[in-house]
Amino acid sequence: DPRLKIFALNSNRPLAEKIASAVGVELGKCTVQQFSDGEIKVNIEESIRGAHVYVIQSTSSPVNDNLMELLIMIDALKRASAKTINVVMPYYGYARQDRKARAREPITAKLVANMIEKAGANRLVTLDLHAAQIQGFFDIPVDHLMGAPLIANYFIEHDIKGDDVVVVSPDHGGVSRARKLAEFLKASIAIIDKRRPRANVAEVMNIIGNVEGKTCVIIDDMIDTAGTITLAANALKEAGATSVYASCTHPVLSGPALQRISDSAIEHLVVTDSINLPEERKIDKLEEISVCDLIAEAIKRVHENKPVSPLFESKLD
Amino acid sequence: DPRLKIFALNSNRPLAEKIASAVGVELGKCTVQQFSDGEIKVNIEESIRGAHVYVIQSTSSPVNDNLMELLIMIDALKRASAKTINVVMPYYGYARQDRKARAREPITAKLVANMIEKAGANRLVTLDLHAAQIQGFFDIPVDHLMGAPLIANYFIEHDIKGDDVVVVSPDHGGVSRARKLAEFLKASIAIIDKRRPRANVAEVMNIIGNVEGKTCVIIDDMIDTAGTITLAANALKEAGATSVYASCTHPVLSGPALQRISDSAIEHLVVTDSINLPEERKIDKLEEISVCDLIAEAIKRVHENKPVSPLFESKLD
Ligand SMILES: Nc1ncnc2c1ncn2[C@@H]1O[C@H](COP(=O)(O)O)[C@@H](O)[C@H]1O
Ligand SMILES: Nc1ncnc2c1ncn2[C@@H]1O[C@H](COP(=O)(O)O)[C@@H](O)[C@H]1O
Repeated sequence: DPRLKIFALNSNRPLAEKIASAVGVELGKCTVQQFSDGEIKVNIEESIRGAHVYVIQSTSSPVNDNLMELLIMIDALKRASAKTINVVMPYYGYARQDRKARAREPITAKLVANMIEKAGANRLVTLDLHAAQIQGFFDIPVDHLMGAPLIANYFIEHDIKGDDVVVVSPDHGGVSRARKLAEFLKASIAIIDKRRPRANVAEVMNIIGNVEGKTCVIIDDMIDTAGTITLAANALKEAGATSVYASCTHPVLSGPALQRISDSAIEHLVVTDSINLPEERKIDKLEEISVCDLIAEAIKRVHENKPVSPLFESKLD
Repeated sequence: DPRLKIFALNSNRPLAEKIASAVGVELGKCTVQQFSDGEIKVNIEESIRGAHVYVIQSTSSPVNDNLMELLIMIDALKRASAKTINVVMPYYGYARQDRKARAREPITAKLVANMIEKAGANRLVTLDLHAAQIQGFFDIPVDHLMGAPLIANYFIEHDIKGDDVVVVSPDHGGVSRARKLAEFLKASIAIIDKRRPRANVAEVMNIIGNVEGKTCVIIDDMIDTAGTITLAANALKEAGATSVYASCTHPVLSGPALQRISDSAIEHLVVTDSINLPEERKIDKLEEISVCDLIAEAIKRVHENKPVSPLFESKLD
């Protein structure tokens, strides 16, 4: 369909190229650069009048620049008479600021939702939101894709499944994510119960569930500074796990993350390409799987008015 | 009035401190920092429930970070039950993207207006917008302050006024600004008529008006890369001007600007502190005047429901 157009902004061009080729279209011609003073300059170099436009952008670091690129692009597309503007955000930045945990905190995940809508987006396609409730921050349709089946495929292909495997949630918030992966892998689950016995005393990693003699697979939605996950991996090893894998959808990997992972008991870290990692950040332990087919299929289904949910059904059964 | 609170974000803390002290209040306690991955973290460390809050932030470089700081702060203030949220933006970034000059361009100045309003601002106080029409991009009240009287004061104090002085607009768009300053200085005006005789040929600086034997004062709203203004200054000197001063409200001064100014016929460049210049960028030719009293007076008048316009009346008469 010539009215289906896909544009890539600057955060994750390699993924956008793979998605376009999987959908079977060329990436739309546009450049997003900066003026001398750092203001963003958008050039859309082909007509998009009447088109259904998909804009691919992760709001990963530098998050504010990537977000403004997206908003300015939406504004330009709207004024250039796009028929629909569909924002494809493999990684949704600011998602952890999704509630007031303390007095006078902002809810930046909602602010971002408002900005995207106000700029003129008609739909959001996104992947593993830090909290599924962020869908409700939008009044436009949101397609919330899941990375768990892809991550499950990786482990199944490496024969990491069944009774000898325990899927571990690194905190209480991630138990249902771990449960989902465990279903795919026909494995059991365990939970890390992080407790600070007294103020100013190091946290203790309490493991709920049996991991002795097992292969552990820790799963989280994102890994940022990798503090919790590396402590968890070491605790699992000490508790008698034979080997420890870690996995997440979004490799934020800021600050000390890469060093911590290298130094930890984690054998392999399985991540997706929702966030673009430059070559020099791909340490040996990192295994990258691509969400390109998942997102390409979602775009095709949205464009054809078909439901997107079948994409998450178990690949193991 | 204890219900009047002024908060400073990170773009221009020195100016914010001067404004607060001129208004006669302490700056509100808040910090705006970054998480490890670069996402912005706002901490408002005092109650602002029921308060009339003024947030001082210029969206100068890094423009996207400064804009997001502002939006997140507005969101936090709104959720913390501020009575009114008044955005004080000495420099309004993205103002040059105020119309579609070519097909498929964004109108980012309008996008920014929408973002500020949607985040929850109740009023904007700003200074020398690149185009006065940007006031109409808002549905909330906008107080549009003028820097010309301050700049006029500088020249009057240095006895640069009267018949020997010509105020020069560097382009057609700035003639009314030059006219205004000329009124204050009781001077005549001239206009630089930049023309490209043929494609791919250097531009010619045609001077409309008599500058021979005169002191020239070029005025613009902002100086960014300083290309036009330094060419204009050199052309004025060649046309027989005895000396050339330049002035602007907003010293954007990106890329080659400082070098160009140093190398040019400009004797002194008079700017305001609407944009914070670190010490190492303050070259010898630069003269900085402060907008702190102007903005402080505007804040007091807004808070007391008095008109702001008397602040721009001629200081010479
Ligand atoms: N970019 C960030 N990096 C680290 N922590 C964050 C970030 N954004 C928000 N937070 C904090 O993370 C907490 C939410 O994370 P969670 O409890 O996992 O949902 C909140 O208390 C936030 O203050
Ligand atoms: N940050 C910027 N730096 C340089 N040029 C810009 C910037 N933002 C917008 N422009 C361009 O400046 C022109 C508007 O400037 P003006 O004609 O002075 O109003 C437009 O054609 C824009 O494409």
